[in-house]
Amino acid sequence: MNLNNTAVAAIKWEDNKLLLLDQRELPNTVNYRSYTQAPEVAKAIKNMCVRGAPAIGISAAYAVALSVQQYYSSTNENWLQQVNLEIQELNASRPTAVNLTWALKLMQQALEQIKDNPIAKITALAKKIHADDIVANQTIGELGANVIGESIGVLTHCNAGALATGGYGTALGVIRSSVQRGLKTIYAAETRPWLQGARLTVWELAQDNISSTLISDSSAAELMRTQAIDWIIVGADRIAANGDVANKIGTYSLAILAKFHQIKFMVAAPTSTIDWNLNTGSKIPIEHRTAQELLPACYTKNKLINAWNPVFDLTPANLITAIVTEKGVVFNPNSNNMKTLQC
Amino acid sequence: MNLNNTAVAAIKWEDNKLLLLDQRELPNTVNYRSYTQAPEVAKAIKNMCVRGAPAIGISAAYAVALSVQQYYSSTNENWLQQVNLEIQELNASRPTAVNLTWALKLMQQALEQIKDNPIAKITALAKKIHADDIVANQTIGELGANVIGESIGVLTHCNAGALATGGYGTALGVIRSSVQRGLKTIYAAETRPWLQGARLTVWELAQDNISSTLISDSSAAELMRTQAIDWIIVGADRIAANGDVANKIGTYSLAILAKFHQIKFMVAAPTSTIDWNLNTGSKIPIEHRTAQELLPACYTKNKLINAWNPVFDLTPANLITAIVTEKGVVFNPNSNNMKTLQC
Repeated sequence: MNLNNTAVAAIKWEDNKLLLLDQRELPNTVNYRSYTQAPEVAKAIKNMCVRGAPAIGISAAYAVALSVQQYYSSTNENWLQQVNLEIQELNASRPTAVNLTWALKLMQQALEQIKDNPIAKITALAKKIHADDIVANQTIGELGANVIGESIGVLTHCNAGALATGGYGTALGVIRSSVQRGLKTIYAAETRPWLQGARLTVWELAQDNISSTLISDSSAAELMRTQAIDWIIVGADRIAANGDVANKIGTYSLAILAKFHQIKFMVAAPTSTIDWNLNTGSKIPIEHRTAQELLPACYTKNKLINAWNPVFDLTPANLITAIVTEKGVVFNPNSNNMKTLQC
Repeated sequence: MNLNNTAVAAIKWEDNKLLLLDQRELPNTVNYRSYTQAPEVAKAIKNMCVRGAPAIGISAAYAVALSVQQYYSSTNENWLQQVNLEIQELNASRPTAVNLTWALKLMQQALEQIKDNPIAKITALAKKIHADDIVANQTIGELGANVIGESIGVLTHCNAGALATGGYGTALGVIRSSVQRGLKTIYAAETRPWLQGARLTVWELAQDNISSTLISDSSAAELMRTQAIDWIIVGADRIAANGDVANKIGTYSLAILAKFHQIKFMVAAPTSTIDWNLNTGSKIPIEHRTAQELLPACYTKNKLINAWNPVFDLTPANLITAIVTEKGVVFNPNSNNMKTLQC
């Protein structure tokens, strides 16, 4: 494995088009879909063709570049209104990951400052957001591997890998860097209902020749009780200023189970995932998705059978051993020590 | 709902044949398969046409009756050897539930004592094991409902219902009795990998006009944190003499999460589920099933991708609020107070 080139890329920019690897079709088919219009990218985010907090931020940034390509006119000043409408549409595509808002804000600020033809500069900024994310993840990987040291085994949840980011991954970045230093035992939870662990994580690792073992989500406690693991490593969709973490449903459960078994719990995420406007996690919007993700189709008309399908949950900071970002590591996160990441 | 007649029956005995509702085909198709030979019943237990600790015990008892029907001869004394071979085969069909061994032992002891033609008596004993289980479950239901009192909401795991027993159910027996007394809010965890919660529990409850809400296994912690529930209610596959409980994978996880959220945890099971030979749960065999239950088919030849698939786990007695049996309720179970059930 080459540290700088993981085998899989979720997002590519080629010939002024955005290419997204359709993650709904993995692991059966590797299919890049081509996008030239921002509303189509908003749909791709909503329907999870692309997913993962950093990856949807980057995709949205490229979508703004597409929007500017489409509407910019040196003779009609209304083009910026149209781009701003599409930015709003992109921002509403999914509620929990703050990287989406973060990337769109960077793009919007740049648009307001550029006075001449913005196409080249805006496209360059989207590419920079993408490239910066890869570099951040490589730093996170190395810092996280330092924290873990010699590990007997780790468990990850959902997919916080190259597929969820610009490249290299956050949680899987830490795992990649740790594998380079000798880590052998990697478990991945399958992550119902969308099965990101089964369909994406073990597949992505295998593309880089890394061996892993899939478990059902509900066997994590039995794994901790009976098998050799010492770290849980996950990504994040939004981190509040006090270190509370919103991440894929099941994360909070793993954090409690880890505490119970005296297993350490790491959140790996770029600082673009931190929402400094929220003092605690309680105000992070938790997305609920359709009941059809859980219910067998034959129940559709049965009013006695319902489903409750939150796809993120909230892990309080006091269950987290370390938050690893590209700007440094915060152990036992709280409102005070999180501030070290704000510089 | 009629307390004595739930809408669904997993096991029927008609015209000297055993009928098993094929639970692999639910909820799409209600299909009773007919059995006349014990080895076919052993296969039906192994491949989960019938499942649930009490239900596989009852099915095995009927299978012994089938075996006696097939082999008994007044002129050739070797028939009993053949029946005993089939009893061994039945006993090996699944390892964790002790009800299987318990029922087969009762049948074998009776066979040794009957001196004349055993067919009628052995068939009657199997029917009695079946009928006693239903009565036990109705008692468990009432005792459990007494313990729960006025509940704001409950969560159950797997299927410990009519489908898993002779009828009425253990955990779902408690829920049925509680619904009669006003319980309104019932959550069911989907229970990967086999989806007993999604395919069986919410379906079974709907057949009795009881409304329920399905959740993914990994959202149980978020449910406990944010929604109104005060009891987790599960069945059991084997209970050790100290109150340690082996049950469907995910049970141990729920018990830890319940403790963390100060939610009470009930195990409902007939005393036939107690293995008095085991001082603690550590020696209960935990069945592992095939990796194919977890892995997408396209991974079959990928040696980098493995699965770890225990289908039961072990919940220590100190995480359990109450074990409810037909002989009474044991609060805060341990080696001493469990003895009250031994009379």
